[in-house]
Amino acid sequence: MTMPETPQALLASANRILAREGVLDAFGHISMRHPENPARFYLARSLAPEMVTEADILAFDLSSQPTAPGNVALYSERVIHGAIYQARPDVNAICHHHAPAMLPFCLTDLKLRVVTQLGATIGKQVPIWDQRDEFGSTNHLVTRQEEAASLSRCLGAHAMVLMKRHGATVVASSLRELAFRSVYGCRDAELQLRALQYGPIDVFTDPEIELAGNFPEATLSRAWAYWCARLRA
Amino acid sequence: MTMPETPQALLASANRILAREGVLDAFGHISMRHPENPARFYLARSLAPEMVTEADILAFDLSSQPTAPGNVALYSERVIHGAIYQARPDVNAICHHHAPAMLPFCLTDLKLRVVTQLGATIGKQVPIWDQRDEFGSTNHLVTRQEEAASLSRCLGAHAMVLMKRHGATVVASSLRELAFRSVYGCRDAELQLRALQYGPIDVFTDPEIELAGNFPEATLSRAWAYWCARLRA
Amino acid sequence: MTMPETPQALLASANRILAREGVLDAFGHISMRHPENPARFYLARSLAPEMVTEADILAFDLSSQPTAPGNVALYSERVIHGAIYQARPDVNAICHHHAPAMLPFCLTDLKLRVVTQLGATIGKQVPIWDQRDEFGSTNHLVTRQEEAASLSRCLGAHAMVLMKRHGATVVASSLRELAFRSVYGCRDAELQLRALQYGPIDVFTDPEIELAGNFPEATLSRAWAYWCARLRA
Amino acid sequence: MTMPETPQALLASANRILAREGVLDAFGHISMRHPENPARFYLARSLAPEMVTEADILAFDLSSQPTAPGNVALYSERVIHGAIYQARPDVNAICHHHAPAMLPFCLTDLKLRVVTQLGATIGKQVPIWDQRDEFGSTNHLVTRQEEAASLSRCLGAHAMVLMKRHGATVVASSLRELAFRSVYGCRDAELQLRALQYGPIDVFTDPEIELAGNFPEATLSRAWAYWCARLRA
Repeated sequence: MTMPETPQALLASANRILAREGVLDAFGHISMRHPENPARFYLARSLAPEMVTEADILAFDLSSQPTAPGNVALYSERVIHGAIYQARPDVNAICHHHAPAMLPFCLTDLKLRVVTQLGATIGKQVPIWDQRDEFGSTNHLVTRQEEAASLSRCLGAHAMVLMKRHGATVVASSLRELAFRSVYGCRDAELQLRALQYGPIDVFTDPEIELAGNFPEATLSRAWAYWCARLRA
Repeated sequence: MTMPETPQALLASANRILAREGVLDAFGHISMRHPENPARFYLARSLAPEMVTEADILAFDLSSQPTAPGNVALYSERVIHGAIYQARPDVNAICHHHAPAMLPFCLTDLKLRVVTQLGATIGKQVPIWDQRDEFGSTNHLVTRQEEAASLSRCLGAHAMVLMKRHGATVVASSLRELAFRSVYGCRDAELQLRALQYGPIDVFTDPEIELAGNFPEATLSRAWAYWCARLRA
Repeated sequence: MTMPETPQALLASANRILAREGVLDAFGHISMRHPENPARFYLARSLAPEMVTEADILAFDLSSQPTAPGNVALYSERVIHGAIYQARPDVNAICHHHAPAMLPFCLTDLKLRVVTQLGATIGKQVPIWDQRDEFGSTNHLVTRQEEAASLSRCLGAHAMVLMKRHGATVVASSLRELAFRSVYGCRDAELQLRALQYGPIDVFTDPEIELAGNFPEATLSRAWAYWCARLRA
Repeated sequence: MTMPETPQALLASANRILAREGVLDAFGHISMRHPENPARFYLARSLAPEMVTEADILAFDLSSQPTAPGNVALYSERVIHGAIYQARPDVNAICHHHAPAMLPFCLTDLKLRVVTQLGATIGKQVPIWDQRDEFGSTNHLVTRQEEAASLSRCLGAHAMVLMKRHGATVVASSLRELAFRSVYGCRDAELQLRALQYGPIDVFTDPEIELAGNFPEATLSRAWAYWCARLRA
């Protein structure tokens, strides 16, 4: 009933949800793999996520080129999506963002940990990628295939990769899991940042992350329904 | 006039109030004991608190099983409520939440104190429960009767219990007192967290907490009317 | 045009403005001296400031008793207002609040300073009152004439007094100046609290506070018109 | 379609955008150079930026006097604009603001750096002006031609100047670039302030700032369209 029907509509909702929940602002983007053709993915034309509607969604091949000619502006960092869909057949949705919650982990040596049950969605380890290591001085945008491939290698089999002086890229098996991981990854980061100001913090152990991180569909649905309701309000 | 008439409607309002005031987000839940049958309590089906309406409220027995068959999803942590209603005949309303205000006290050794008159609602001492102590590695959800019973023992005769790496559970003699205690417990926590960044803080003494903590019905009503007005706005 | 016409309507607007701008929440109150009878003041019945309308405003004498019989609940701390109007003929408006911006100065030894031009509205010195000094253990509410008189003595000729473990009381020659002083007092406090986390701060000198603190009517009007517009939005 | 048509309408939108995005509150102001007469600039009459409409925009000469007689109140600090337009033929838009994000850099010795790609808009170096140095004790308002000329000299060829115990003045070649620089200057400042609480931070090098700081029109348009959409919402 509250569920959009086409993949494009679903992706447009995810864009507006992550903007509404503070993960994205004018920048950042979300894609999903084509449900029937794994060699294609959907992504909006260059537009602030909060403004994305079904009509703004385009199809791309895995080299991140649009599958149909057009003269709209495209996200310059769309190569991130293609590179990861190529390397990770298990990934069906990707979000690249610059949420303030993640930046302290991208600007200092502070290690991102899991501190609550919902935060376990980010997994046991979050690798950190520094564009400088392979590419020297850049404008810090990931616009070239080799940059995206390097980022994807650093992500490896993980659920998320931090990018030095830049932000984060989150992956998931579904759009709903992606929204959940993006939002609660940030919420958990905020909680640990806050607590760290008052002394050493207590964190989840690896076995606890494993036990907690496997969320039932009901949990993802409850959050998704809530976020959709907030969009409509 | 602004007062909902059935217990279910009142409980639905409390759900939306605590979401609106930042105590709950997509997760967390509130219950109230059945006003005529102390062996029953009301709690919503699994749903984000902000979305709860009168129609979503179900009745449960004190083993936290629904009293009528149904095929809606239920909160996995509902055992918290039944266990406390069993152990505490004086308790008529319970809120389990993960408000950011409380998490530093759940993640560090920082002790929750009372720093203003309204904060005295949490009482002279707030115990801390660690699921690890009795149950080892878990996903940190309280879903088993023995986990809920352990949490309830730790709560004892207090007004609130903190849960390590998890959140808090607040109890009260009425739904209105519960809302007040949940909100102003968090507000007072925020004030001390903020002040602690500038040096040692001055706190209420036990005699002062006793003098301040016994709020007249007028105080609870003023806050409740305000929160209801904000819901409507 | 945007100016309410009766003193009661003006006072109701000031209530809603200070709630909207984050100085007051469900608690705290604002009064103004009767424009024609200096032995009277206006104050709302016990009600959250955001909900106050013209019809909720009552008249009080300087012993803080209502001038007309009635059976509505009254603010228990209304004695603060009467005591100050008695002691300070130059004061025509008073706000008692618990804004989070002021609490670090009420809970630690941190001294409230002036750090920007608008902040100069609080004056060169802000005294601090501790109810414990004269009254020992209390619930920290100022409800007795002798408590209010003590607070008023501590305020002296200043524009504002901080109250340990409680909040602040702000006075002014007009309601418009009061709103300005209450809001920009808090804004300036927030700025210094934030800056203090990064090292010693640079503050206004006494001569600079004197030069900056005398705001033209145009400045007060510009802020008041802005706040009224935000109320309507 | 979403683009206002006259320069005055565009400037009014910029006022409301910077208020909506948290750069300006009741105070601060934005001007643009007259598109056809470089010896003129547009600026609102004295009014909170959020309330500015096309009808509130007046024309000024480079001595910051209105070009037409009128009896509306004017911003007392309008000399800042005239002085900079005189000294900087490349500048076509100016914003003077007091955003909380910048104040720690105006109140402590903390140095404003660039930490993300969008933050590179502020350039490699941001000078700091202290009114005390040349003018001794003042109310910290920049209201005299010599004060404005001094500030303009300190700005030099830079994109922004910080003002001790006061705020910031930002310049740009277009109104759209100005909005972008004002907002993302503040966002980047917030990110570094937050990260600094957890250890030494990693920053952009000068070559990286140079590579990143030259934003294509598409980037500015995407942000501007987003901000306009948020204004309408």
